[in-house]
Amino acid sequence: MSTETGMVNAYVEGSVELNPEEHEMIQRRKALMGPAYRLMYERPLHLVRGEGLWLYDSSGQAYMDAYNNVTSIGHCHPAIVEAISRQLGTLATNTRYLHATVLEYAERLLATMPSDVGHFMFTCTGSDANDLAVRIAQSYTGGTGIIVTETAYHGITQAVSSFSPSLGGNVPLGPNVRCVPAPDAWRNDGDVAATFTADVTAAIHDLERHGIKPAIFICDAVFASDGVFSHPHGVIKGAVDAIHAAGGLYIADEVQSGFGRTGDALWGFERHGVTPDLVTMGKPMGNGYPVAGVAARPEVAEEFGRKARYFNTFGGNTVAATAALAVLETIQSEGLTENARDIGEYFKDGISRLADTHGCLGEVRGAGLFIGVDIVTERGAKTPDAGKTTRIVNGMRDECILISACAKAANVLKIRPPLIFNRENADQFVQALDSVLKRVG
Amino acid sequence: MSTETGMVNAYVEGSVELNPEEHEMIQRRKALMGPAYRLMYERPLHLVRGEGLWLYDSSGQAYMDAYNNVTSIGHCHPAIVEAISRQLGTLATNTRYLHATVLEYAERLLATMPSDVGHFMFTCTGSDANDLAVRIAQSYTGGTGIIVTETAYHGITQAVSSFSPSLGGNVPLGPNVRCVPAPDAWRNDGDVAATFTADVTAAIHDLERHGIKPAIFICDAVFASDGVFSHPHGVIKGAVDAIHAAGGLYIADEVQSGFGRTGDALWGFERHGVTPDLVTMGKPMGNGYPVAGVAARPEVAEEFGRKARYFNTFGGNTVAATAALAVLETIQSEGLTENARDIGEYFKDGISRLADTHGCLGEVRGAGLFIGVDIVTERGAKTPDAGKTTRIVNGMRDECILISACAKAANVLKIRPPLIFNRENADQFVQALDSVLKRVG
Repeated sequence: MSTETGMVNAYVEGSVELNPEEHEMIQRRKALMGPAYRLMYERPLHLVRGEGLWLYDSSGQAYMDAYNNVTSIGHCHPAIVEAISRQLGTLATNTRYLHATVLEYAERLLATMPSDVGHFMFTCTGSDANDLAVRIAQSYTGGTGIIVTETAYHGITQAVSSFSPSLGGNVPLGPNVRCVPAPDAWRNDGDVAATFTADVTAAIHDLERHGIKPAIFICDAVFASDGVFSHPHGVIKGAVDAIHAAGGLYIADEVQSGFGRTGDALWGFERHGVTPDLVTMGKPMGNGYPVAGVAARPEVAEEFGRKARYFNTFGGNTVAATAALAVLETIQSEGLTENARDIGEYFKDGISRLADTHGCLGEVRGAGLFIGVDIVTERGAKTPDAGKTTRIVNGMRDECILISACAKAANVLKIRPPLIFNRENADQFVQALDSVLKRVG
Repeated sequence: MSTETGMVNAYVEGSVELNPEEHEMIQRRKALMGPAYRLMYERPLHLVRGEGLWLYDSSGQAYMDAYNNVTSIGHCHPAIVEAISRQLGTLATNTRYLHATVLEYAERLLATMPSDVGHFMFTCTGSDANDLAVRIAQSYTGGTGIIVTETAYHGITQAVSSFSPSLGGNVPLGPNVRCVPAPDAWRNDGDVAATFTADVTAAIHDLERHGIKPAIFICDAVFASDGVFSHPHGVIKGAVDAIHAAGGLYIADEVQSGFGRTGDALWGFERHGVTPDLVTMGKPMGNGYPVAGVAARPEVAEEFGRKARYFNTFGGNTVAATAALAVLETIQSEGLTENARDIGEYFKDGISRLADTHGCLGEVRGAGLFIGVDIVTERGAKTPDAGKTTRIVNGMRDECILISACAKAANVLKIRPPLIFNRENADQFVQALDSVLKRVG
């Protein structure tokens, strides 16, 4: 982990020798775009083309993309490219006019939700979606207090960055924000769900003790940035009950875990047997086209809508709705959620088998095609090993397979291939990981 | 103005009889998307196709689009559709990899800016851009105070909505926000620039008196939502000097006034002879594709970038950069800024001539193809007439020409045809306006 940038797997200038083309691009980029931008890997990638599972750099080298959760049904999926291109040439306008596809999408999307969730609002990014969800929740509850996990990422707007602790110590948390440890079942000797409920309850009490009315508890279903804590099912149920008892709402952040990624259902929260008050979504929703949104219990959305109007110029534009509809139809018609479940199990088993010969593999966990591998100095001690994690991520990049890392201790491999991943791809990945693990020791 | 919604020219249910198809769509929309969404016009439009200046409804009826500032170089511009479609089929990925087009766009865009403005950061929407600009400005200045005009609109995130007074009384302004009257030269008997400078200076003092360090003064170059106050040139110069003297920054919000709209230059702020610390842009940047950004003085952006990283999943993706590059090239190669200047003058003259026969036309003002027409009960008294304004907007809609209205008193016609507008189009518009003015009395 680069402590300078507060970002796992960030490129650090000067750490390795680069080829002249990449070196020049990086210098130009710094001169034009300033220091806030980060590249990934010790040797950043200059990509020029994508197709299905594969990305290609400027030399024509192919990379297996086992990381990007935006192009979740594969890079440049022909059906999506075609649907977007056709709509681009037909009409691109906004929600202040009536349009059939916007309504059709809202209807189709809501049909995938629990019956209690009955309104859908379009935004442009996952950050927008969480920003809007919090505005709605704070308006409805009359509270401002926010509870998140301690390495959570929910977005980049001013409001949302104030409850995204993974952005690092230089981005201050709000005075209305409380952080709780994510439910790490592997390191918790007792009942991890009970511990998590107790932590959230304590955070609620601490907010109240400071005169701050709790408004929301927000998390994603697998604690993506905290370290991919996928199990046990139902681990957040007590926390959701606790925030409800305190008059607050539960926001299911499905920006990373939604749209079939977790395999067992279209939405990650379903694995926990809870009904959200608000559901936010984004990244894979348009397979790369910027589209995102908020689903809500009508009662909650209506309280906000009666007081404030909402217009997002690009949110729910006709092209965005068309892109999102094509993606949802493809996920459903091609059975990609089921594929994520089946291949995900196979893939996880394959990685788990490597633990027999590699003591640094701690727990292999995850749901569907969202997999986390806990890298430790030695399995019994469970001590996080960030250095080795970085070496594995960059070693895999040298094998032309793209993954990254996450977690508070920066020691969990974050593996998210597209939902079209197959057994052969999984075998290739496992074989490469085996040889990288041999190499990094 | 609908006081219920706080939005000028919003559809109000039950005010007129609609055809069954539109009625059914509106009911479905309400059921699916809740009450926060607004439609425009007494009789909302169901649009299915766009081409150049024209929009078409489901019956095949053509409408002259003299309002939408997103598809600013014309609906479904073939060069833009083609560029986006090609990139969609090649690579859609993000700024954590190197990509030539992202750098090329930043370079080309910065070449249009004053030499002091040397960094460019990509966002997805104009709201995102203003949200980021304020984070940067507050980090750099160490202050939080914000000064805006009293009917300004800068965006919809939680932070930006707190300084967007045009969202209405139910969206609270922040305790760190001060509003000043926009510079209405027509109603100001003295030196409007001196008045405006004095108002901004008083707001600075009021912030300081409350222990709030001023961070920004933000406005767009024509006060778009306040009523299109385009003149005199340089009217904001004293205010910019005042915020600088107080240690704050000036953000030029070019989301509405940028990319050639004002005719005299690519950027609206240029008409005022000032150099911004930060420039935000969005809407027309991708001619409908969601792309936006912030240009900044390097010193300002670097202070932020050293402390905080910035990643926007969709901001600066390869397709967004391609779309934006194609739009900028088209504006420059087709001379659309110059067209906006020339046709804008011709168009404004044409509307102004109607004042001879219609006493409700107060001032006709604007820059390039951003035109405002102040509607009054009677020219001498300059008393705003919101009712007549609404009747004119809806009368023009009946003539199949789309405009809207703005201003604190909801009495200014807001006219923004695409930059490809020609003399024939202007003549047709003026003729229709003449007959509508005769009809509404």
